[in-house]
Amino acid sequence: MKIGFIGLGRMGHAMATRLIAAGHEVLVYNRSAAKAADLVRAGARPAASVAAACAGREAVITMVADDAALAEVTLGEQGIVPALAKGAMHLSMGTHGVGVIRALTAAHAEAGQIHVAAPMLGRPEAVAAGQAGIVAAGPAGALARCAPLFQALGRRVFEAGDEPVGATSIKLANNFLLSCAIEAMGEAFSLVRKYGVAPAALYDIIADGMFTSPAYKIYGKIIADESYDQVGFTTQLALKDSNLVLAAAEAARVPLPSAGVVRDRLLGAIAHGDADKDWAAMARDQARASGLE
Amino acid sequence: MKIGFIGLGRMGHAMATRLIAAGHEVLVYNRSAAKAADLVRAGARPAASVAAACAGREAVITMVADDAALAEVTLGEQGIVPALAKGAMHLSMGTHGVGVIRALTAAHAEAGQIHVAAPMLGRPEAVAAGQAGIVAAGPAGALARCAPLFQALGRRVFEAGDEPVGATSIKLANNFLLSCAIEAMGEAFSLVRKYGVAPAALYDIIADGMFTSPAYKIYGKIIADESYDQVGFTTQLALKDSNLVLAAAEAARVPLPSAGVVRDRLLGAIAHGDADKDWAAMARDQARASGLE
Amino acid sequence: MKIGFIGLGRMGHAMATRLIAAGHEVLVYNRSAAKAADLVRAGARPAASVAAACAGREAVITMVADDAALAEVTLGEQGIVPALAKGAMHLSMGTHGVGVIRALTAAHAEAGQIHVAAPMLGRPEAVAAGQAGIVAAGPAGALARCAPLFQALGRRVFEAGDEPVGATSIKLANNFLLSCAIEAMGEAFSLVRKYGVAPAALYDIIADGMFTSPAYKIYGKIIADESYDQVGFTTQLALKDSNLVLAAAEAARVPLPSAGVVRDRLLGAIAHGDADKDWAAMARDQARASGLE
Amino acid sequence: MKIGFIGLGRMGHAMATRLIAAGHEVLVYNRSAAKAADLVRAGARPAASVAAACAGREAVITMVADDAALAEVTLGEQGIVPALAKGAMHLSMGTHGVGVIRALTAAHAEAGQIHVAAPMLGRPEAVAAGQAGIVAAGPAGALARCAPLFQALGRRVFEAGDEPVGATSIKLANNFLLSCAIEAMGEAFSLVRKYGVAPAALYDIIADGMFTSPAYKIYGKIIADESYDQVGFTTQLALKDSNLVLAAAEAARVPLPSAGVVRDRLLGAIAHGDADKDWAAMARDQARASGLE
Repeated sequence: MKIGFIGLGRMGHAMATRLIAAGHEVLVYNRSAAKAADLVRAGARPAASVAAACAGREAVITMVADDAALAEVTLGEQGIVPALAKGAMHLSMGTHGVGVIRALTAAHAEAGQIHVAAPMLGRPEAVAAGQAGIVAAGPAGALARCAPLFQALGRRVFEAGDEPVGATSIKLANNFLLSCAIEAMGEAFSLVRKYGVAPAALYDIIADGMFTSPAYKIYGKIIADESYDQVGFTTQLALKDSNLVLAAAEAARVPLPSAGVVRDRLLGAIAHGDADKDWAAMARDQARASGLE
Repeated sequence: MKIGFIGLGRMGHAMATRLIAAGHEVLVYNRSAAKAADLVRAGARPAASVAAACAGREAVITMVADDAALAEVTLGEQGIVPALAKGAMHLSMGTHGVGVIRALTAAHAEAGQIHVAAPMLGRPEAVAAGQAGIVAAGPAGALARCAPLFQALGRRVFEAGDEPVGATSIKLANNFLLSCAIEAMGEAFSLVRKYGVAPAALYDIIADGMFTSPAYKIYGKIIADESYDQVGFTTQLALKDSNLVLAAAEAARVPLPSAGVVRDRLLGAIAHGDADKDWAAMARDQARASGLE
Repeated sequence: MKIGFIGLGRMGHAMATRLIAAGHEVLVYNRSAAKAADLVRAGARPAASVAAACAGREAVITMVADDAALAEVTLGEQGIVPALAKGAMHLSMGTHGVGVIRALTAAHAEAGQIHVAAPMLGRPEAVAAGQAGIVAAGPAGALARCAPLFQALGRRVFEAGDEPVGATSIKLANNFLLSCAIEAMGEAFSLVRKYGVAPAALYDIIADGMFTSPAYKIYGKIIADESYDQVGFTTQLALKDSNLVLAAAEAARVPLPSAGVVRDRLLGAIAHGDADKDWAAMARDQARASGLE
Repeated sequence: MKIGFIGLGRMGHAMATRLIAAGHEVLVYNRSAAKAADLVRAGARPAASVAAACAGREAVITMVADDAALAEVTLGEQGIVPALAKGAMHLSMGTHGVGVIRALTAAHAEAGQIHVAAPMLGRPEAVAAGQAGIVAAGPAGALARCAPLFQALGRRVFEAGDEPVGATSIKLANNFLLSCAIEAMGEAFSLVRKYGVAPAALYDIIADGMFTSPAYKIYGKIIADESYDQVGFTTQLALKDSNLVLAAAEAARVPLPSAGVVRDRLLGAIAHGDADKDWAAMARDQARASGLE
């Protein structure tokens, strides 16, 4: 397919690489053009602007850092809405809030374009390996049109209905579940430590039985080893995600008590200097609250 | 080994069955003797009292319903402490609170006996199939002596140090992690439902990716299907477990905010008539709080 | 009236003093008899046992330290139930849990005696000055019979129905409200301190406007001054009260999220060494969690 | 003084009225000019624009609905910053978030103007009666210059340092304390109701003893009477305030567990249709969670 790709951070770069390798005709755009260089060598064409990346495209994909960037890139005067052809698609594939996603859906509809929200599940390494999941929501016909792209980008597509914001809510719910698992492990490890138990003993059970999944094994290990300096995702970024899920809960009027607990833990961790540590440092904040640090 | 086995509820019965099958010489005692009948046919000998079940035994195992029963069976005038030989072992294998476990450890030590706390991880069906785990804590030599019993009883032993209460803390932490996972899923399912997403769409992601473990698959399915009438473990019993972990946290001075959230959810579920439903009905209480029921 | 008075701690002593001064004929009993000496000089007669303190009495009042003591003094073999005349009253005036109060009500009813729960509102100094309140619940006729006693003991009686446990629930609710006010102030003071505001500035507003009540003025001042060493009521005792309200909430199936927050704060304070400080040290635990200490 | 007054909602109108009555020379501006009519009859002069309301003024006061309005009125191209004279003051007197207040402080400083944050404490009726409080923060000299205005506007000024955001933090903390008091009362009333106690019995104690302050008497009465239809402040607006305090807590890295509890309660109330009821309807959401509705 003829596509535009906007936003070449670590995730975007890995995604664009896969699309090029799959034979799609890709125009790439990034605010700092340097990040496009090796993609161009791999077969992409550079676009000089967002509008240029939309010209003549069946679909344009965005993978930008935050809601403000997505709003500007899409709704701005030089953005996607004024540049994209009628009937063409915009796949917003980052992790965004429900507010901006709804605004995009409305603006694209008014312009006769199609909005698909399709956030990725997985880190850049998983994307590069073709192991990431994709949660996609949008008009049924549009999802079918996206199939070749999704096939190139990930391992499996989870369809979440025809309202783009539905995919957003699932992506946020998934991140939220992970934050709750980390918080719960933080509490559990503090508890057993206070009874003189080696963290590894609890970890062995977590890794073996009812919880033997990547979420618990990866983060249980970090907590048991207190290896918060090996950063996969920072506490600071986790706070941003926490705000996205809280905003989604507010917009839908859903009390989320566990999200409040997680938020306070993240704030406590940041207040004590762990903003740039791995967000499993939530467990250190719990330990501190328990008198263990 | 020559052992006594006290408490023949569903768990105890499954455990005694395995010990007999493994060739141990088992005296069985239960308050209502009828439950021992088939075990006797299988090779056990019935004991007429707790004291009789202790006579001449290297080890006695208890699997009783709650802390009050364990205290009475162990510390009572007709209990294990006065009946068990010096140097013999008491393996308390139920899920109990830290208070009673510490009391047992002290009483057995004073009587020159050995206390091992070794709660089982898994339901009766898993025990029957030899698939249960065992968390064991007690003097190192004692754990070695228990090895043939543990081998007969379960799949794997997780050692948790030489203080029996350490095993208790791990068992409670494990149950607590499960309660937090259910609560988090309840919140997540309410959130996506409010965005018009079919629960199955979230379940598919839970069952496939970061959370693909028995805890999330079993309980995620119950929540997605709202099949709270197929009861594995009741809300009422979950409240009892919740109290055990809160008491352990209090005794060790560990704030456990997620445990407070779970407790309130269980109380809400029971207040609305779900005491005897599967405890995943926590998710229904969350849905109700969100205006979904 | 002819009354027996059991339990001469600081509260009980102040209460017995007022009853004697009001002309009632008082038999006093305390486990350690020394505490009765000055009351005897003031006109009371010493009783050698709980039973002796009940002999020939229209009413017996208990003011004992905790639920275990109340249960033993009332329901024990040498307790009030076997010793008190039919038709006579037992006024339990301490702060107790709903479980023991219900057990007393049942036992007294079975023995043809009358149970009135009438916890005091106020500290010993307030009692001594006749400024304490009394929350009373029991059969309507019984409350009328108690009027002369209540008149001697306090400033005002708040009637809470004919079920003794109703008075208990109000007393616990009152303590709970106070704990929540302290927690909220702790959070508020941490917030403004982080914005560079002197605690006294917030205190001035608290003491002047919407919150100008003893609860906020007394505890707001302690927090603003960080004078946790002047102990009115310890963190450790506050944890006991917190458990009483949580148990009452559990028995009645009432989720109490604020009680969970308070409990965790108390545990955090105790974990950091403030068990014997004034319970307003909850605010210090909040400050610590905020990175302020 | 020569002042401009921008924003003539209920609060602003009451404030402008007092300033005119005190003899100040007031230019008034409101988006819909009709609201200025009676003020003009009382002696004010109408301004045709924000800029006109700033012309030749020593001070301009804003009392606008929310942060977006304050940002536009102040920082917009036709706003206060470009129109106000050097050395003149902007008193922002509404309830705003820390982010916009800090932005105003920076913009005014750059323009050589002075920003004072001085949110009002009290409802329009209290303002009209001269009974409102004022929390003021800004450069010491500026607060002194404001004295005649504050004298006209309220009963008492609480100084909160020289950083405007400090006054904001106190105002938000004050609102937060109120929300916590309402939440705690909601929980307490549910508890006693479940023990068969008439709400009025708890109210009597609240109104008499440790909590005898406007906050508890006003809201305790609403809850006891369940008179949520007499609306002083809506649940919806309370959610806005809740977000302001949570944002302030986040910016300062302060975990606020009670704020999370309040937020969830407000969302629950709104989810069940109480958005436009008095925010004491939080207590109804608590009652519902307890199985009481």
